[in-house]
Order: sequence, then structure tokens, then C-alpha cells
Amino acid sequence: MKITMAHGSGGRETSELINGIFAQNFGNSVLSKMEDSAVVPVNGNGCGKIAMTTDSFVVTPLFFKGGDIGRLSVCGTVNDLLMSGAVPKYLTCGFILEEGADTEDLEKIARSMQNTAEEAGVMIVAGDTKVIEGNGGIYINTSGVGFLKETMQTGADKCKSGDVILLSGNLGDHHAAILSARMEIENQIKSDCAPLGEMVGRMQKEGVEIHTMRDVTRGGLATVLNEISDTSGCGMNLQEERIPVSKEVKAFCNILGLDPFYMGNEGKMIAIVKKEHAQLALSCMRESRYGKDAAIIGEVTGSGEKVTVETALGGKRILSVLYGEGLPRIC
Amino acid sequence: MKITMAHGSGGRETSELINGIFAQNFGNSVLSKMEDSAVVPVNGNGCGKIAMTTDSFVVTPLFFKGGDIGRLSVCGTVNDLLMSGAVPKYLTCGFILEEGADTEDLEKIARSMQNTAEEAGVMIVAGDTKVIEGNGGIYINTSGVGFLKETMQTGADKCKSGDVILLSGNLGDHHAAILSARMEIENQIKSDCAPLGEMVGRMQKEGVEIHTMRDVTRGGLATVLNEISDTSGCGMNLQEERIPVSKEVKAFCNILGLDPFYMGNEGKMIAIVKKEHAQLALSCMRESRYGKDAAIIGEVTGSGEKVTVETALGGKRILSVLYGEGLPRIC
Repeated sequence: MKITMAHGSGGRETSELINGIFAQNFGNSVLSKMEDSAVVPVNGNGCGKIAMTTDSFVVTPLFFKGGDIGRLSVCGTVNDLLMSGAVPKYLTCGFILEEGADTEDLEKIARSMQNTAEEAGVMIVAGDTKVIEGNGGIYINTSGVGFLKETMQTGADKCKSGDVILLSGNLGDHHAAILSARMEIENQIKSDCAPLGEMVGRMQKEGVEIHTMRDVTRGGLATVLNEISDTSGCGMNLQEERIPVSKEVKAFCNILGLDPFYMGNEGKMIAIVKKEHAQLALSCMRESRYGKDAAIIGEVTGSGEKVTVETALGGKRILSVLYGEGLPRIC
Repeated sequence: MKITMAHGSGGRETSELINGIFAQNFGNSVLSKMEDSAVVPVNGNGCGKIAMTTDSFVVTPLFFKGGDIGRLSVCGTVNDLLMSGAVPKYLTCGFILEEGADTEDLEKIARSMQNTAEEAGVMIVAGDTKVIEGNGGIYINTSGVGFLKETMQTGADKCKSGDVILLSGNLGDHHAAILSARMEIENQIKSDCAPLGEMVGRMQKEGVEIHTMRDVTRGGLATVLNEISDTSGCGMNLQEERIPVSKEVKAFCNILGLDPFYMGNEGKMIAIVKKEHAQLALSCMRESRYGKDAAIIGEVTGSGEKVTVETALGGKRILSVLYGEGLPRIC
């Protein structure tokens, strides 16, 4: 069935769409009340704080090797909450559907969202659907709430000179998978799209003193590190040969002239940790489901310094943020 | 300036857009940390519960008499939280911009969001921006968190036979304003787009026993009452001559053959209250900024009955939900 403007009216057709697809897949005791707001408990977090985040997803194509817009929309928001040191709990999702969108696709996407939510341990508690004119596009906003521990002290302003920078796995997989799908190039590259709760939880449980966490998404590693550098005032220095990139992505980048430093990922994070905890953090990452290729990639340098990368030959260059459009509609 | 795909890259241009427009207008201590998640306190609500909601806004045109997509996006989410009995506190906003969107418009919209947030007593704590191909469209998702009082017991399942139904003001203003703008009809009709916190707070403070609250948006009064009827199992009976509709909107509807029962509003609510509290609720509404035309419009009837309306001449007809598209992109 194709979506029509009537599905956005708020009347019978909207209700059929919601009951037929969303309620079927997201069904839980909170959502199924179908009130205008979801009411959820915040007891038991032993702290008076929550984390909130929002992210919209406009990726094209909707389905790609290793994931789909639904999985992406849950992982993106879950990972943003994790990076602030919170335990993700509740998600809302807002669909903007273009007229002509396929309800079978929507059904697959909703199922994928629910599966990913279960994997990540979060509940989808509220939703909204709007319809606009167009050519069958599907856009998803997910917003989320997570609980913070009172002891949690992470943030872009918390890293300091001497800290060690870890990257949880290979760069560029998601970006290369989307680009391959869009250019109809056949290869083995899969999106890395994944929720990182297990990895973060393991580091926290083992007592790693994590100063800063950030997922490496749009803009790539270079942009993320520059943002942290801007906030903290510290420089960073990376060892180029330590940056993990898969053989396939390396070859793909060579052919197309892409730089993995600027490529988006959807299941990779950096952790900036106390120097003495770097090896512990590394083993935590490597023991986690999505962290087997984790590596120590560099260190935080002094205040006022820049983000730099040292090549295998000993050269050193400044790594600036992404200019221009990169690959649009990657997430 | 026109939005380009580069504004959605996550790199320098995205950051310029965010700092230049959003941070300028939404600037507050939480948002300005520019982390992936906002961290906010939930202390002091004396309860272990929060309310969460999400809503996307795709209204066209972006600016209309009485409001704009920005004011709408704050009011819609604030009102959804209020209707669950919560005190709205924090909003997130996700922008999806079509290439070619005008940054001056965006600036006006951001300012309007901030003004409305201040009026409603909420803080915009997190944001996200994506860019897609298109013709300059602007879409906004707002998601929100509110605090609940432990004593608060409202819901579509809480109303019962004998309860009185109040409507906070004239029906159809928003719908008629959008339709007028789209058809380029010159008239005096303004959108009713408004946050309803003062009104709800006044009823709560005065101790009105409110069983159900609902804002009367997409699908109109008829659809909203049918939804409550479906959930509660109760019927409802309205007195047609008591339903407030302004002279201008009545004339507009007569000419175009529209039915105010199915027209969307953005600053109107119904409250279903204990019979003995109906007059108190009415004076609370009428004393509130957006409630001077409030009226008692009917009552809740027995289990298994339908939503009906009695005409001035004594006839009775069944009021069903909206079928078909009504007016798309009204909110």
C-alpha cells in the first residue's frame, strides 16, 4: 500500500496506519495507551538527572548493507545518550512520510527499530506521523531520555593533556556502504550501524576513568576531534598507522579519493581516558560485540595545540574539520 | 542565504548554521554545551515519573496569521505534555531543511520558538539539523519532557458517565487561518496557536477534578472525542448550539462547506471534569489568557454509547471520526 495525504490527516486513516504498523511493532504497555504523552518512571537512577537528545534521519537509500534507516535511527540516539554517560531508557519517534511511501517498507523499518531497541535495552514510548507531498521518502526523528549516574563526569571539556584516545573500530564502513549503495557498486562493505551500550557499560563496570566519549558520525573522526579540541582547549595528536580501517574500505577510498578521517560511521566511538587506564579500556572495547578492531590511536596534547596526525614516515599534518558537503544524507 | 547540502554535512557549514542561528536564539546553559545529549535535573518534582512526547510539524505556509511553524512546534509539544497532567520542562528540536530554505526565515522561526518557549516556561535543550534535496521546505520535530505530580490522575480512560465536557474556546481558527493563507483569501481569521499551561495550571490550582484533557488538533473535536470514547468505552453527547465558533469562522465554513467539528486547532483543549466542578473549571478557563470563549459543551454518557450531537431543533446525530484527508499539512 502507498501512503496518501489522508494518512496524515489525524483521522481514520492515520489511526489505521498507526495501529496497523507502529503499534504492532512497537507494542508495549506505555505506548499502547495512545495518549498524547507517554508517562514513564524515573525512579531508581539514584540521581536527579536525565540526559535528553534528538536526531533526525534522512539516509538514502532506506535499506543498505548492514542496516536500514530504522536501525540507524535507534542506534544514533541511543549512542548519543551513551556518550553523555547516561543509560538510554526511552525513545520517541516521529515519522515524516512523503506521499507514495511504501507501507511494506515502513513495516520493515518499524520491525528493525523494535529489534534494535530491544538489543539496546530501550523502549519506544511515543510516536507521531505526518505526511507531506513528495516521492515516497521516509524521514525519522528519534529523541531519547537516559538516566545519569551521579558519579558520571564525562564531557568534551573533561579531557586533559596526557589522556589517551581510543577508537572502537574501523573507520568509514557506514559511509562507504551508503556510497556503494548509491553508486550501485557491488562489494562486501557493510554499515557498522550498532548500539554501543555493551561497550560503554563494560568500561564503566571495570572502572575505566573516561573523560570524554563521542560517537564518530557525520563529519568523521577529524571533525569530532576538532569539536572536542574546541571545547576542551586541548590539542590532540594521532598516529596515522594506528587508525584502524578495513582492507575493503581502504581500497574503496583509494579508488574514489576519499579520506577515512572524514567519513561517517554509525557504530564507532572514541573514548578519551586517563593514561593509566588505556590498556584496560582497550580490552573492554575488544571484548565487546562491536569492538574487536578497537585501537589506541593517539593522545591529548597541551592547551592551545591543534589536532594533528603523524604519518608512518614521521611527518605531521594538521587535521581540520570537514568543509563542504562530504556525503549528504548519510544518516 | 540559502541552505545547501553542505549545511547538513556535520562539518564547518553545519556548525556555522547552528552557531549563527540556533545557538543565538536558543542560547541557554544546557544547550550551549553542545554535547550530543543535554543533561537536565529532574529533582523537585516529588514524583518518580516524567511525561514524554514527540510531534513533527510540516505546516505550509511557514508563516500565517496568528503564528508560524516555530510557535506551532513549541505549542504542540507543550500542550501534549500538559494534557497528560505534566508540567512541561524541556524540549528538543530536530530540523529537517530542504535545500534552498531561507536562513532569514529560519532565523525568524528560531526566534519565534524561543519566544514561545519562554511564554510556556520550557527550555530548548538539544537540537539536530539535517538537510535534504527539495524546494526550500522546513520541517521541525519537537520532543518534550515534563514532570508529573504523583497525585495527577488524568487520562482518556478516566472519564465516566455524568462527567461534564468543556471546550476552551472557538473551534476552527487555526484550520481556517491556514486554509485562508493557502487559498490567498484575505480575512481577519487568526490561528489560535497558543500554549495552554496557564489554563491547565489554574484548574489544577483551584482543585478541579479533571478526568481527561486533550488538545483539539488534527482531526478536530469530533475525532478527539471519538478517540476518548474508544479508550474509555463511554459515549458523549454534545449540545450543538453551545459549541463556540467565531462569526468569521462560521461564515468562512458556510462558504466553503466546512464543518468546524473536523477542523484543527492549535490552542484549544477539552477538559472532562467531575460534574460538580464544571462551573469552577469554566471560570478557570475564562479567566485564562486563551480561554475567554470557553464553554460547557456536553456530557459523558453511558458505556457503549456513541459520540452524538443534539441540534438546536432537538435532532440528534452521530459524530464520527474524520475520514479522508481533511486539510493536509495543517500542523
